[in-house]
Amino acid sequence: MGILKMTLLVQKYGGSSVGSAEKIAHVADRVASSAANGARLVVVVSAMQGETDRLLGLASAVSTRPTPREVDQLLSTGEQVSAALLAMALHQRGVSARSLTGVQMKIRTDGAFSRARILGLDRDAVLGPLHDGDVVVATGFQGTDEAGNVTTLGRGGSDTSAVALAAALRADECEIYTDVEGVFTADPRICPQARKIDEISFDEMMELASQGAKVLQIRSVELAMNHDIPIRVRSTFSDDPGTLVSTSGGADDADIERLVVRGISHNTDEIKITLRHVPDHPGIAAKLFTRLAKSRINVDVIVQNTSLQGFTDLSFTVGGTDRDAAEEIVSQTAVTIDANGYEIDDSIAKVSIVGVGMRAHAGVAAKMFETLHQAGINIQMITTSEIKVTVVVQRDKTTTAVNALHEAFDLGISS
Amino acid sequence: MGILKMTLLVQKYGGSSVGSAEKIAHVADRVASSAANGARLVVVVSAMQGETDRLLGLASAVSTRPTPREVDQLLSTGEQVSAALLAMALHQRGVSARSLTGVQMKIRTDGAFSRARILGLDRDAVLGPLHDGDVVVATGFQGTDEAGNVTTLGRGGSDTSAVALAAALRADECEIYTDVEGVFTADPRICPQARKIDEISFDEMMELASQGAKVLQIRSVELAMNHDIPIRVRSTFSDDPGTLVSTSGGADDADIERLVVRGISHNTDEIKITLRHVPDHPGIAAKLFTRLAKSRINVDVIVQNTSLQGFTDLSFTVGGTDRDAAEEIVSQTAVTIDANGYEIDDSIAKVSIVGVGMRAHAGVAAKMFETLHQAGINIQMITTSEIKVTVVVQRDKTTTAVNALHEAFDLGISS
Repeated sequence: MGILKMTLLVQKYGGSSVGSAEKIAHVADRVASSAANGARLVVVVSAMQGETDRLLGLASAVSTRPTPREVDQLLSTGEQVSAALLAMALHQRGVSARSLTGVQMKIRTDGAFSRARILGLDRDAVLGPLHDGDVVVATGFQGTDEAGNVTTLGRGGSDTSAVALAAALRADECEIYTDVEGVFTADPRICPQARKIDEISFDEMMELASQGAKVLQIRSVELAMNHDIPIRVRSTFSDDPGTLVSTSGGADDADIERLVVRGISHNTDEIKITLRHVPDHPGIAAKLFTRLAKSRINVDVIVQNTSLQGFTDLSFTVGGTDRDAAEEIVSQTAVTIDANGYEIDDSIAKVSIVGVGMRAHAGVAAKMFETLHQAGINIQMITTSEIKVTVVVQRDKTTTAVNALHEAFDLGISS
Repeated sequence: MGILKMTLLVQKYGGSSVGSAEKIAHVADRVASSAANGARLVVVVSAMQGETDRLLGLASAVSTRPTPREVDQLLSTGEQVSAALLAMALHQRGVSARSLTGVQMKIRTDGAFSRARILGLDRDAVLGPLHDGDVVVATGFQGTDEAGNVTTLGRGGSDTSAVALAAALRADECEIYTDVEGVFTADPRICPQARKIDEISFDEMMELASQGAKVLQIRSVELAMNHDIPIRVRSTFSDDPGTLVSTSGGADDADIERLVVRGISHNTDEIKITLRHVPDHPGIAAKLFTRLAKSRINVDVIVQNTSLQGFTDLSFTVGGTDRDAAEEIVSQTAVTIDANGYEIDDSIAKVSIVGVGMRAHAGVAAKMFETLHQAGINIQMITTSEIKVTVVVQRDKTTTAVNALHEAFDLGISS
């Protein structure tokens, strides 16, 4: 059997999976067992849990505003440490392995420190060691720009590193190891009936990920979809096969009829901002949202009420951490556009139902609204996409809403 | 005044100088003040004190015999952290700075992990930022081999990094900042009369460094001598100009007459091994010392007694940490060469007098032996070089010997 016939797997282990010497040993056992099964392996690791915060603490101790370039030089050491340790732990188990940094793999990115995007990588730098029979232990989260500076990809960037490597190497599958069993129909912490999903489509996963099912970074899902690389989300601490995220999502035509809603997600980290009595001229909204975008504030649900006598109310949600920055812009803009002031509501939650099957089914949204109404929950805002309906409700109704919807759409019953 | 006329200084700060955020802030103050004086600066840093041990502790926790390649990948993060933090601390003081790793400066080394030797570096990678007006904060101790692996230079390697950078950039001076005021006539911890030396020659410094005056790595002194780069050893925590190490050593012809002995060094970390009743054939010694060299055991003082009826005693010293490895080789060799057993004495000390002036003066060695005799100290072994006389004495006589010699050669009196 030639080397070309061998399965090539990319595995990614997050910070909690490599958080101590003991955990690294456990990961080494898993990797060694995959290697014994004959797969060629690229293992992507994050920094040990707590390490990034330790390094940022040092940075704050020497600087009130640490330089982005130097923060990336600093933080990239975290993954380098995990990768070297895992390679050593593999040698200890008789598995030949080599750790490689972002610079050594020439993972080229743009120059946006702390949130760089991957542009490409040197396949040969990884294929060489693989052909030598080594497990490649790759640092996640990092790369290097054209000028040779170290860059980092931002939070969750290691998932993206793993998928980028899988795509460049045309891997058979990209396994993302984490501390949960997979993707669930709802967050098990608030919904006891929540069930692990065996297979899901990229589209659905993206909607779930963007709404707070934080097992996978949305950028990595997008990248995997574009390159048609199946992702398997599974637990470092169990043998469950986890959730396979793929183009088909495991659905054949018969399933499409049945699986209308695949899962429910919620997000309690956002706030709602409302501009009152805004003159209804063209370009008003554009002015506001351009300013917010320039400050890198992500705006999510946007609702503009019907114009009443030439005025309208404009509401939208932003992440709670952007509150101060957003308020500064909104308060200035309110004056500029002659609005009648603004309000901020930080006791909201977003709840979404997600499913590819919705495309073919009318009445899904209506069933959602009716369910919430029966549960005594008032809907403040609504947005819809082809495979998702999102509502904004009062934050203290989150658990009630998620459980009511989970039951209404029969998600607790194994499909 | 063009940039070409500006002074170019290389400064190196060791692990104790950058051991905490507070100390890094202090170093940043010093560097900022040098920058304000108009010098172009390359600042070489070691890992924060304790960091290397912390990383080695992690390595031992995952592996009983950590792979050398991975140890170097691991340890090189230590300097990267210090360098990024110092660059941030400089920005905080309004000084523009850029940290560069061994890989980024393309510090090429051979492939001998953990004790690599520098072969060259990319001047442009350092000159570019300097021309942009940045202080370059360079990681000491590390480089990269031809295959792109990270390598480290071994203990004290940051001194070598600093001198290599100074040589490649043709710097005006290389300042080595440490926690002592400079090079002393003897170790002040055991010799209260010891005096700081203002200027010393490379030759003398090498003899002192190799004998245990551990302020400067001997490889770095050799490199500086070969490239005629003056080194200034000085304290991070005072404004004393320290000790200038240069080709002339500050001596003119008149001085040569006077400064017979420049300093006294001692070393209590070695052990003495004696092979008894060795057949006096050609090649016996070669056989033994070749085996020791192959195991990378450094042998220092070697004394072979006059042959008595075709047999001789052979004694030599090795570092105490090499004891087990050396004993294994010696015990085997003793059998092979038909010697009458061996002895190990671990209660010895080496004491040396060093000075360029000795070349021109007879009687220096005699004065040394007489002084030790007067102090009631028995001499076990003697070796001499052009600028040094070394004796091996009983370890508990070290302090007495050093102080007696210090006084006999008038080293306490300022020259």
